[in-house]
Amino acid sequence: MIKPLIMSIATLIILNISTFNLLAADLPNASADRMETRIIALSEFGKNVDGGVDRVAFSDADIAGRGHMVNLMKSSGLKVYIDYAGNIIGKRAGKNPALAPIMFGSHIDSVPGGGNYDGDVGVIGALEVIDQLNTANIKTEHPLEMIIFSAEESSMVGSSAFTGDLSQRSLKDFTSPGSERTDGLDRIGGDHTKLIQAKRTTPVHAFVELHIEQGGFLEAKKLNIGIVEGIVGISTWPVKVEGTANHGGTTPMPGRKDALVAASKLIIAINERATNMEGRQVATVGQIQAFPGASNVIPGIVEFSLQIRDLYADKIQHLFEVIQQEAKTIEEAMGVKITFGTSGVPSPALTDLTLRSLIEQSSNDLGLTYQYMQSGAGHDAQHMAPFTPSGMIFVPSRGGISHSPKEYTSPQDMANGADVLLRTILKLDETKFTND
Amino acid sequence: MIKPLIMSIATLIILNISTFNLLAADLPNASADRMETRIIALSEFGKNVDGGVDRVAFSDADIAGRGHMVNLMKSSGLKVYIDYAGNIIGKRAGKNPALAPIMFGSHIDSVPGGGNYDGDVGVIGALEVIDQLNTANIKTEHPLEMIIFSAEESSMVGSSAFTGDLSQRSLKDFTSPGSERTDGLDRIGGDHTKLIQAKRTTPVHAFVELHIEQGGFLEAKKLNIGIVEGIVGISTWPVKVEGTANHGGTTPMPGRKDALVAASKLIIAINERATNMEGRQVATVGQIQAFPGASNVIPGIVEFSLQIRDLYADKIQHLFEVIQQEAKTIEEAMGVKITFGTSGVPSPALTDLTLRSLIEQSSNDLGLTYQYMQSGAGHDAQHMAPFTPSGMIFVPSRGGISHSPKEYTSPQDMANGADVLLRTILKLDETKFTND
Repeated sequence: MIKPLIMSIATLIILNISTFNLLAADLPNASADRMETRIIALSEFGKNVDGGVDRVAFSDADIAGRGHMVNLMKSSGLKVYIDYAGNIIGKRAGKNPALAPIMFGSHIDSVPGGGNYDGDVGVIGALEVIDQLNTANIKTEHPLEMIIFSAEESSMVGSSAFTGDLSQRSLKDFTSPGSERTDGLDRIGGDHTKLIQAKRTTPVHAFVELHIEQGGFLEAKKLNIGIVEGIVGISTWPVKVEGTANHGGTTPMPGRKDALVAASKLIIAINERATNMEGRQVATVGQIQAFPGASNVIPGIVEFSLQIRDLYADKIQHLFEVIQQEAKTIEEAMGVKITFGTSGVPSPALTDLTLRSLIEQSSNDLGLTYQYMQSGAGHDAQHMAPFTPSGMIFVPSRGGISHSPKEYTSPQDMANGADVLLRTILKLDETKFTND
Repeated sequence: MIKPLIMSIATLIILNISTFNLLAADLPNASADRMETRIIALSEFGKNVDGGVDRVAFSDADIAGRGHMVNLMKSSGLKVYIDYAGNIIGKRAGKNPALAPIMFGSHIDSVPGGGNYDGDVGVIGALEVIDQLNTANIKTEHPLEMIIFSAEESSMVGSSAFTGDLSQRSLKDFTSPGSERTDGLDRIGGDHTKLIQAKRTTPVHAFVELHIEQGGFLEAKKLNIGIVEGIVGISTWPVKVEGTANHGGTTPMPGRKDALVAASKLIIAINERATNMEGRQVATVGQIQAFPGASNVIPGIVEFSLQIRDLYADKIQHLFEVIQQEAKTIEEAMGVKITFGTSGVPSPALTDLTLRSLIEQSSNDLGLTYQYMQSGAGHDAQHMAPFTPSGMIFVPSRGGISHSPKEYTSPQDMANGADVLLRTILKLDETKFTND
């Protein structure tokens, strides 16, 4: 069974190769049935009437689901512990304990009214990798660590604490005695008094996250695998349009300074500029409110949110400036005032080039189709990327639907993801990064 | 002092003339100072920190303000009573008790955060007329009735009960034992058990309401008086735009079915069609809500209000149909669904032609400038118009602002209104309507 792995020229250039233990074709394949069964079993924790889950971080359902996963991880031979940030980590020894571990995993907490695949597929896929390694009796050089990050959908406290990337806000939310989040952290086995110490101080060789796409790109293109180039940066601005509130009956149409008409023009301009600009940037207005908000009063103020996402911060800034210019034109034409509040600094996270290549090779080894793509949604990997070489593997989401009970990924797609994950881990085991 | 009134040919044709007691020039003029002093005194009831009033119907401030007015009316020699609907009516005897009374007045209740002139000017102006008649020692042929309608800003229960025009909804709101409005009606001296009997069963000769314009037309045109042709009808539709809610990060711009972008297009179309159509119609979108309403989710549903006002119901219907056509175009272009809920039947109320003419003559007598105009706002006169020949006199509102602490009408403008009201009443006293 143990044969040298045939690698592409490109990989030979990128990688510092040691020895390869297995030919991809000889590796065991993930069990689609087992993965599906485990997804269904996990979906019982926080199951709601719509067929989705309410397994919000720190809820009873979250705690029960975590207990369920710890049991499975132990059954698969992992040595499990929970760090101060509530991350569940399952260790599998490597041949060389001196090497930094390879980490992989995702999360099992959900949004309210969430689905059964977001996060879960990455966790069940990670467990499947462990089981396959066990079945094939493979011991890697590097130790392995499967991780279930805490509270991905509620601030990503787990991955940000693990990587020392905690925001001041999270620090306050999770360490103020008596606060809901502080108590929640302690309830899941973390320790708010030691949250800062959750930062991993020993090196991690690399991190890989398998996740559903949460978009419709792979399905539309009929592709098996998405190789994630990075997680987009997100900037969200509050926008305020000020016109003149007035009586909707006694104020003639000409001369109205209707803040909602002005806001409507800007919303259309935002959509058109984001759509027509070259690239993959997206811009969304998801919230809107008109004041005073009565059917018989011309809105004097309209407030809405503007969110722009892109893999590159300067692209976000450029689109924002184009939108500001559109706002100026509307201001002048309509006699209104438009102000943009401050947004957070976007921090797009690029995945590691070598890791992308390993995922590509693994997909090729398996005869799976793939494409490079960006992740429009946030993931724990965005905190891991600046900390250690990180990569992400996407599998298709039916209809591109996510954060909904309608979320669905087929068993075969999940198994494909686990297969790519396993092969990527084995290739990582043979890879030496420049900073190792 | 008693001389025959010189009338225009037009008036001679319209009116069935008996005798005239006074030449307009010889009539006393309203006291701007006294009116201003009384407006300021009334503004103490419900005064708020912004300099406006919170004198919402049935509130303690409303009850105290009503008590204050009753005292003033009695001091001016009126015989005051409160009808079952809480309307305050002050009677002044005429020479001929067999004649139907001439009514005039307005309201003193306010919207929350309202101003000191909406309604109040008509009530203080009516009282000023009484005082001027007292000063000049004039006794009219017809009895006079000054009226302060109850709850104009809260359902117009007073004028609608008085004219037998109570809606099913008002009837329920004001007669259900223990309801807030039922209790409120009783608190101001009405009687919810006899609300239906508030309907005036004896004839009223005519009704005149002096009111601030609540718009900027008179001020912009530098005119003293607005002769109201009618009170617009109002139709309000709930509009629902259905697109597809989706992740604002993972859903590429092309192919989005963003309900808010579609709604924005319709809002602009509504504004443009209402503005560019010939006539004085207005269309307002004052309320809007996007669902699910998160900054990172493409709105799947947007709901907003559409309100159209015009003096003619068929014009409202025509504009609505034009807007529906625009909605169809947007539906087809964007793949969204737009539905319009049901609106109430608009009931525009036209003022009496003779009364308009009397107001015009009175303005001419006084050398005041005037123009015919519609009222875009609702008034008690809209209930009175189908019940008895009714007219409305508008005086300018500074900046067109109303329902706001910034509401303002100058003392001289108020006095002009009272002068026109007095002369109109005296001309009415000499007028015989065809249905008298």
